[in-house]
Amino acid sequence: MKIKFEPDGKTIKIEEGKTILDAADKAGIDIKSDCGGKGTCGKCIIKIEEGMDSLSPLISEEKEDLCTEEIEEGYRYACAAKIKNTKTEIKASIPSKSRRDKQVILEEGLEVDVELNPTITKYQVKPDKPSLEDDLSDFERLKKIIKKEYNIETNHISINTLRKLPKKLRNDLGRFKTKFTITLNKDKIIKIEDGHQEEYYGVAFDIGTTTVVAYLIDMMTGDIIDTASEMNPQIKYGEDVMTRVTITFNEKNGMQKMQEAIIDGVNRLISKLCKDNNIKQEEILEITVVGNTGMHHIFAGIHSEFISKSPYVQGLRDSVNLTPNETGVNIYEDGNIHVMPTVSGWMGADTIGCLLTTTPHKQDPIQLMIDVGTNGEIVLGNKERLIGASCAAGPALEGASIKYGMRAAPGAIQYIEINKELEPKLDIIGNKPPKGICGSGIIDAVAELVSTGVINRDGTFNKNVDTDRLRPNESGMEYVLAYKSEYNSDHDVTITNQDIREVQLAKGAICAGAHVLMDELGIKKPDEIMLAGAFGNYIDKISALTIGLFPEVDIDDIKMAGNAAGVGARLALIDQEKRQEARELPNLIKYYRLATHKDFEMEFARGQYFPHMDMTKYPNYEKIQELRTCR
Amino acid sequence: MKIKFEPDGKTIKIEEGKTILDAADKAGIDIKSDCGGKGTCGKCIIKIEEGMDSLSPLISEEKEDLCTEEIEEGYRYACAAKIKNTKTEIKASIPSKSRRDKQVILEEGLEVDVELNPTITKYQVKPDKPSLEDDLSDFERLKKIIKKEYNIETNHISINTLRKLPKKLRNDLGRFKTKFTITLNKDKIIKIEDGHQEEYYGVAFDIGTTTVVAYLIDMMTGDIIDTASEMNPQIKYGEDVMTRVTITFNEKNGMQKMQEAIIDGVNRLISKLCKDNNIKQEEILEITVVGNTGMHHIFAGIHSEFISKSPYVQGLRDSVNLTPNETGVNIYEDGNIHVMPTVSGWMGADTIGCLLTTTPHKQDPIQLMIDVGTNGEIVLGNKERLIGASCAAGPALEGASIKYGMRAAPGAIQYIEINKELEPKLDIIGNKPPKGICGSGIIDAVAELVSTGVINRDGTFNKNVDTDRLRPNESGMEYVLAYKSEYNSDHDVTITNQDIREVQLAKGAICAGAHVLMDELGIKKPDEIMLAGAFGNYIDKISALTIGLFPEVDIDDIKMAGNAAGVGARLALIDQEKRQEARELPNLIKYYRLATHKDFEMEFARGQYFPHMDMTKYPNYEKIQELRTCR
Repeated sequence: MKIKFEPDGKTIKIEEGKTILDAADKAGIDIKSDCGGKGTCGKCIIKIEEGMDSLSPLISEEKEDLCTEEIEEGYRYACAAKIKNTKTEIKASIPSKSRRDKQVILEEGLEVDVELNPTITKYQVKPDKPSLEDDLSDFERLKKIIKKEYNIETNHISINTLRKLPKKLRNDLGRFKTKFTITLNKDKIIKIEDGHQEEYYGVAFDIGTTTVVAYLIDMMTGDIIDTASEMNPQIKYGEDVMTRVTITFNEKNGMQKMQEAIIDGVNRLISKLCKDNNIKQEEILEITVVGNTGMHHIFAGIHSEFISKSPYVQGLRDSVNLTPNETGVNIYEDGNIHVMPTVSGWMGADTIGCLLTTTPHKQDPIQLMIDVGTNGEIVLGNKERLIGASCAAGPALEGASIKYGMRAAPGAIQYIEINKELEPKLDIIGNKPPKGICGSGIIDAVAELVSTGVINRDGTFNKNVDTDRLRPNESGMEYVLAYKSEYNSDHDVTITNQDIREVQLAKGAICAGAHVLMDELGIKKPDEIMLAGAFGNYIDKISALTIGLFPEVDIDDIKMAGNAAGVGARLALIDQEKRQEARELPNLIKYYRLATHKDFEMEFARGQYFPHMDMTKYPNYEKIQELRTCR
Repeated sequence: MKIKFEPDGKTIKIEEGKTILDAADKAGIDIKSDCGGKGTCGKCIIKIEEGMDSLSPLISEEKEDLCTEEIEEGYRYACAAKIKNTKTEIKASIPSKSRRDKQVILEEGLEVDVELNPTITKYQVKPDKPSLEDDLSDFERLKKIIKKEYNIETNHISINTLRKLPKKLRNDLGRFKTKFTITLNKDKIIKIEDGHQEEYYGVAFDIGTTTVVAYLIDMMTGDIIDTASEMNPQIKYGEDVMTRVTITFNEKNGMQKMQEAIIDGVNRLISKLCKDNNIKQEEILEITVVGNTGMHHIFAGIHSEFISKSPYVQGLRDSVNLTPNETGVNIYEDGNIHVMPTVSGWMGADTIGCLLTTTPHKQDPIQLMIDVGTNGEIVLGNKERLIGASCAAGPALEGASIKYGMRAAPGAIQYIEINKELEPKLDIIGNKPPKGICGSGIIDAVAELVSTGVINRDGTFNKNVDTDRLRPNESGMEYVLAYKSEYNSDHDVTITNQDIREVQLAKGAICAGAHVLMDELGIKKPDEIMLAGAFGNYIDKISALTIGLFPEVDIDDIKMAGNAAGVGARLALIDQEKRQEARELPNLIKYYRLATHKDFEMEFARGQYFPHMDMTKYPNYEKIQELRTCR
């Protein structure tokens, strides 16, 4: 029986009678299962996209716990759904809520149609042996057979390959061998192998300011084989991009230090992916890289000073191909490092990656793409016109600058519901005593407090509500999400009035950016909102609408694009058309600098209200609040 | 007053009243002048090509010494011809006979029409300064101005240039500068300079088995500024190519050793040319390289084993562009090393260089191009069809394997006349006591001995001649060119029967090769013969016809192409059309392997006669002999 897991893209075979949980385990996908697969904890909820008929019927626990709508949409307990003997392939998607911690930044995404059409390709050839009558030289002999069998003009050969070529084509006795595999990067031969070798690999990198994510791709199929991530090693030099950029030009050997840090990180991830998947590093022929303009320039070693100084121009806008030797990246010696294009000094290759995934430039509906990270990048438009801006949202939405803020790691409160009695219900990563709150938890908390009237629309606490959980603290007031006594933990976890202020500033910046762009484009409402970024994937849509993180649209028009930047890097890796599309994107986007925009300051002030000072912009706010209660 | 010297291509200015000898001295051209410019030694003969009217009239010594024809053709004593006040530019060519030793391998050549159209070019630009309103990135800003001002699409930038670009465009205060010079290699930016910098240089290399010659070219004009040469440093590993090729694959690190030797030599020449002409090495942006296939592969570091083993195929036929880093050649870090194409394992880039110069592929008359070196390469044909072969002529014609053979260096007999009394008249390089005979002297000696009947047509000595100079020696007989008593030298210099045998084998191989190709092409006689190679330039045409070094043609149809291989390297350096033409040439030439050709053995035997066993092939032999006596 075959079962495919989404969004991982992994397909495995499993015997009849095994559960989806067993299959996920075999596929290396970690699903929460606190009860050990007994059907009692209700954590292993997955969604069957296709092949429900090939599964055992619902058990009583599922019927009880899942609501009718959920059952209709195909939700099941992974541990309860046993696979029957069938020819239908089962397709299951695993919501981020049901995944264990390590998957926390590698989550669901859009399904993107992409053709497997990589820049680097392999060709099997059987050239004629040279003889006195047919004494064509070695390179030209290969050129001829590639032209004859594949109708491809080969014009170049890498010097490393050329130097070894005559030896490589012959055995120890000097006899010409019969079968070869030739690897081409466009019209250049970069590798010759004996016999027929088909497999090769690529890695797509998303170099975030905080996290570096690597996707190992099977270049024969385009599938993701594995993913790995680590903290950006530059973080020890400073949390934000500008601190790091400043080091590159202010400190002696600053650029070298900063570049080596990221290259080391990239190499560690490559090494781990190779080791875990039993692949040799020389089998990796290409990597693609996205990242904001600062990360991009430092990765490529391009003098970055003037990104940080007015008028903030980058050294290079276009994509650039580098060699392993030029970068220090440990892949095949003649492999390619494709660094994706940037839009401006403040809108980088990560945004290009997002747009490759969400493709507003190819559609009629007007899309508002928001990539929420330490900075928020916003692109608005459709195939007619695209405009963009970046907002200094600050790190609050990622859990930083929040009293009990933390990254999405074990002990972080990630989802919160507050009932009518103003009592919270928490979902904690790793099911441990709560240590703090991560980004999605913060938005949930504020939204629930707004929704239940604990917080006023201007962000102040409503002192008249009837709960002990609202209490004064050293700098004002705070709401207690978790008493240490409740969980036997080290400390209480609270949301303070200062935290709410931080959220107001962050959401105000994004909200204002979106509204400024909407005014520029002359629209009242986008047709859809695409939320990109790891964080974007975790936030609760209703909570986000409740606080007014972005303009109001129908809840079904809010889509989670997953790690769209990383997906974009993968698309560019497996499809050269996408790579070309990426090169054209910077020309299509008119970039607005919000800091100097005439309307921004006012919009920023108005946007700090929950959801907005001007309620006419949120006409369906009440209706959305009703959705909260039915959850 | 301006005077231009050919074939050096040097133009200088000189005051009225000075002589051509003074001018040559100022231009750094060494003309023989044993009498110190008194008009008595008759060694400084030059030919005035243009501007005879701008010179003082002939002095009595000239009238006496020069024959009427010579005077009509414009021959003068350089020391006697004084320059008058005139606006006409004087053009003088300096025959190799009138040059001093050091010029011995850098001599006359064809004048080739060539456009100055190099691959690497410089452009002066004044881009707009970036501003908040015009925040285009640095690379794209340059791209835009180059497109606007020169209508050139720039698609790439070297990583070294890119990394420094933002800094390079701005002053220490971070202000964008105003004027730049951009250097492009095709569509790639390889250098940015402040202000307007026009000058740059290239070097054309002819890597011979014995000698490496380097031509320093001013890329603004295409002119040769200077030349330098040295012995091929690989010579310590073996005199011939195959010995060296064998070392590359038979000895541990053999390739590295052999490659380093030649690269060191190339770097020494670059360094000398730079020093002598006050040029920085980073101002040299490109070099072109010709050489036989062995030298070519070793220079580029391509595994060379199978050039030396049947079916003798080379690794690469096409030209290849390498970087300074890939080769170790010390020029500008992003400069280009253009290695010219080869025809086969035994016909290399040197032959391609010759053909670029002598251009049989562009003309109707059928040309027989002979590049005489350690191996002789022959190409026959015209624009309809070209066929070629290489002959193992051996080193005899270069003075090696001859008892008193030596290179063209001081003490070498270079020209010989033998009068009716069978007494020789010698022209010795450097006017020193004779130490030996160089290539041109050997051919002269054999020709004169044949012409005077001292040697029979089958190469044996005629014992019946009446001269004491013919005497027995340990292995047969010899003719004494110089008694040590005549010159107060260390030893007699003689031509032995063994020497004559060596000449027979060498000239037999070339003669046979030419005849085999003529039969293949179905012609009785080529329309012209082009003699290439340093040696080709020095031999006396009548002597060459007398011994039958090549097929008989009218004496005016024998042309000296000079160091045509080196000229070809220069043409490819200054004109990208020529470079493209060179890439097409290997496809145009059908290469014949003489060793296995059915007719070669017989032709080789017949060709060892003076001039040939079949005298019907030399119908004008008697008439040519008459020309000898009138010299």
